[in-house]
Amino acid sequence: MAAPIERSDCAELDRHDPLAPLRAEFALPEGTIYLDGNSLGPLPRAARDRVREVVDVEWGDGLIRSWNDAGWFDKPRTLGARLAPLVGAEPDEVVVCDSTSINLFKVLSAALRLRPDRTTVVSEAGGFPTDLYIIEGAAGSHRRRLLDDGQDLGEALDDDVAVVVLGHVDYRTGRLRDMARVTERVHRAGALMIWDVCHSVGALPVRLGDCDADFAVGCTYKYVNGGPGSPAFLFAARRHQDSARQPLSGWHGHADPFAFDVDYQPAPGVSRFLVGSPPILAYAPLESSLDIWNRVDLDRLRAKSVALTSLFLELAERECAGHGIEVASPRDPEQRGSQIALRHQEGYRIVRALIERGVIGDFREPDVMRFGFAPLYLRYVDVWDAVQELRDVLASGVWQADRFGVRSAVT
Amino acid sequence: MAAPIERSDCAELDRHDPLAPLRAEFALPEGTIYLDGNSLGPLPRAARDRVREVVDVEWGDGLIRSWNDAGWFDKPRTLGARLAPLVGAEPDEVVVCDSTSINLFKVLSAALRLRPDRTTVVSEAGGFPTDLYIIEGAAGSHRRRLLDDGQDLGEALDDDVAVVVLGHVDYRTGRLRDMARVTERVHRAGALMIWDVCHSVGALPVRLGDCDADFAVGCTYKYVNGGPGSPAFLFAARRHQDSARQPLSGWHGHADPFAFDVDYQPAPGVSRFLVGSPPILAYAPLESSLDIWNRVDLDRLRAKSVALTSLFLELAERECAGHGIEVASPRDPEQRGSQIALRHQEGYRIVRALIERGVIGDFREPDVMRFGFAPLYLRYVDVWDAVQELRDVLASGVWQADRFGVRSAVT
Repeated sequence: MAAPIERSDCAELDRHDPLAPLRAEFALPEGTIYLDGNSLGPLPRAARDRVREVVDVEWGDGLIRSWNDAGWFDKPRTLGARLAPLVGAEPDEVVVCDSTSINLFKVLSAALRLRPDRTTVVSEAGGFPTDLYIIEGAAGSHRRRLLDDGQDLGEALDDDVAVVVLGHVDYRTGRLRDMARVTERVHRAGALMIWDVCHSVGALPVRLGDCDADFAVGCTYKYVNGGPGSPAFLFAARRHQDSARQPLSGWHGHADPFAFDVDYQPAPGVSRFLVGSPPILAYAPLESSLDIWNRVDLDRLRAKSVALTSLFLELAERECAGHGIEVASPRDPEQRGSQIALRHQEGYRIVRALIERGVIGDFREPDVMRFGFAPLYLRYVDVWDAVQELRDVLASGVWQADRFGVRSAVT
Repeated sequence: MAAPIERSDCAELDRHDPLAPLRAEFALPEGTIYLDGNSLGPLPRAARDRVREVVDVEWGDGLIRSWNDAGWFDKPRTLGARLAPLVGAEPDEVVVCDSTSINLFKVLSAALRLRPDRTTVVSEAGGFPTDLYIIEGAAGSHRRRLLDDGQDLGEALDDDVAVVVLGHVDYRTGRLRDMARVTERVHRAGALMIWDVCHSVGALPVRLGDCDADFAVGCTYKYVNGGPGSPAFLFAARRHQDSARQPLSGWHGHADPFAFDVDYQPAPGVSRFLVGSPPILAYAPLESSLDIWNRVDLDRLRAKSVALTSLFLELAERECAGHGIEVASPRDPEQRGSQIALRHQEGYRIVRALIERGVIGDFREPDVMRFGFAPLYLRYVDVWDAVQELRDVLASGVWQADRFGVRSAVT
């Protein structure tokens, strides 16, 4: 049996980490251990100059000419093509645009029209809420059938199911679904599969193409580090593109947007999912972020992610035993994404006490403390130090101080 | 009869222009006369620092905390409240979010549900194309009835009309509709009125409240100067807000977004029109732009706009006679917005030749040269100089050079 891990062992792991040099690409605040990259990724340093260039040169000097000269008009497509490898898609299967919610509305509307004789949409009660709300809004007279936590998908699949919408990684527990297996079951039932990859893209290799997914949506502001509210993306498999119709038929999705026709004619390919003018400034940091991603081997990313989350789990259980903490994430690393969720009935106050000490995680109702481990910029020693702070917060009872408030939904 | 206007007269007008000091607030490129603020407004100088602050401080240092601490979560509402005076609305009747196309989808869907027994949507064949396309997408089984240019609205109104969607200012000709009179006619027919104010907001006082408008949409990147593709806005009259339902039911429009309920419950008021996470960077320049707008008297703005467009029309007709140019905009300034459209069958090449000389206008199919006159940063001498360049381009025939290409839709 190996000797217990010490901080020096973690430092040794960092010295041999092939991804370690990438940490310098991010502007991480001094004295902070940032375990919330699963909610908002940090600033890539190069994004500062890129944003300045877009503001001063492209907008300030180029003015209206930049729609063509600086490639603004094509940003949703060019960035979609650059993002595609992160989700295992072809360059012409992805566009970056709008929000995840709006993109889900588009692909779900399109998918429902591709299964006109079926009237049920299956999702999961524990899914990210906006997915559930958008299903309500887009499904019209269709029925929404929700899986309970742990319920087998097979119980919900029948020949009335048109579309299944599931999260690849559970936003609370970090549970990772088997994309290939689930997609295959859904297809066998004659339904179409939409994946929400918000909590997996940039955290592990996503293989939409290999898994034969029909559609997918995801955001770029979590592990992808594109900035607060940066444009989301959508994936539409080539085989569906030219038969897909979606109701947000704006001019940027028109076959000939500058012909100014009276009638809508959808563009060929994935471009038909575009709607209105893209928010150009919001795309700029994503370009810098993708410059980093171009240099990342996703299998190495996954290996480090598994190592970080496993280390956190092992240390947290060793150091924090006896303080009423429960592990909510799967123990098998093959079944989890890049986050660890711990339950504690006073989780809200514990998270706030940790934040005061510079360890930033977050809290989700009713009792979930979430800690995300982004392999691009986190070190093994960060995991060590974070667990020490967690132990100190729990052992000292400092979280009981008035300043950490009462349990609340806002973190 | 007054003596013909000379350049010195224009300079004199500039000396007495109460809005003249605002020009210094914008980063206008040297040697450029920018007559395309009706398509993309220029960069407010203060936006550079504001963008840098959002990137470096709010995102870089604040990270996830800025959703609360920097007011990110409320940007659509706080900026909506600040924009409201520009469109004559109350602060709680406007949100800034998404694109104009998406916002039209939302308000049109809501309006149709408020008139469930009627099946026709009226718009205009010459309206901005994305409005027509979105009507197709949102109207479902409803009929779309389009007015021809010059056709009286009365011919299209009957008791089957649920909603009328019209542009306040025609994007090609600059023709300005009488908002109060049109809205009143639509209401008399029992229908609801949605205004597209993209080409009037920031160009003249828009009085949605006084005119009893039901809903409106508009963009912030034209006369408002919010930056390329900056978030659009929507207006929903208070009386409709709590009965309005729209299908893009994302979590930011939920009554309690962080309760993470399974079912959608629309937020009270105009917030129910929000969908997903707002693109924070794209809001930053709009804040700087609204700092300028806070100091602008809209009646003065309108007076200068009328003076600029009238001067351009007078000079263009005097200087460019005999070159095959036709005036496409109304001659009565009360019936036009802040742009002048001139028709010429070689308009595409003429516009390109003008751009080469630093006079930036644009072209719209089939033969329309558009010149926008934004009163915040244009001078009377700019109008004079622009007309001199136009005359020289026409008189010299330089536009016939190969480098200005053949007629095409892309400018």
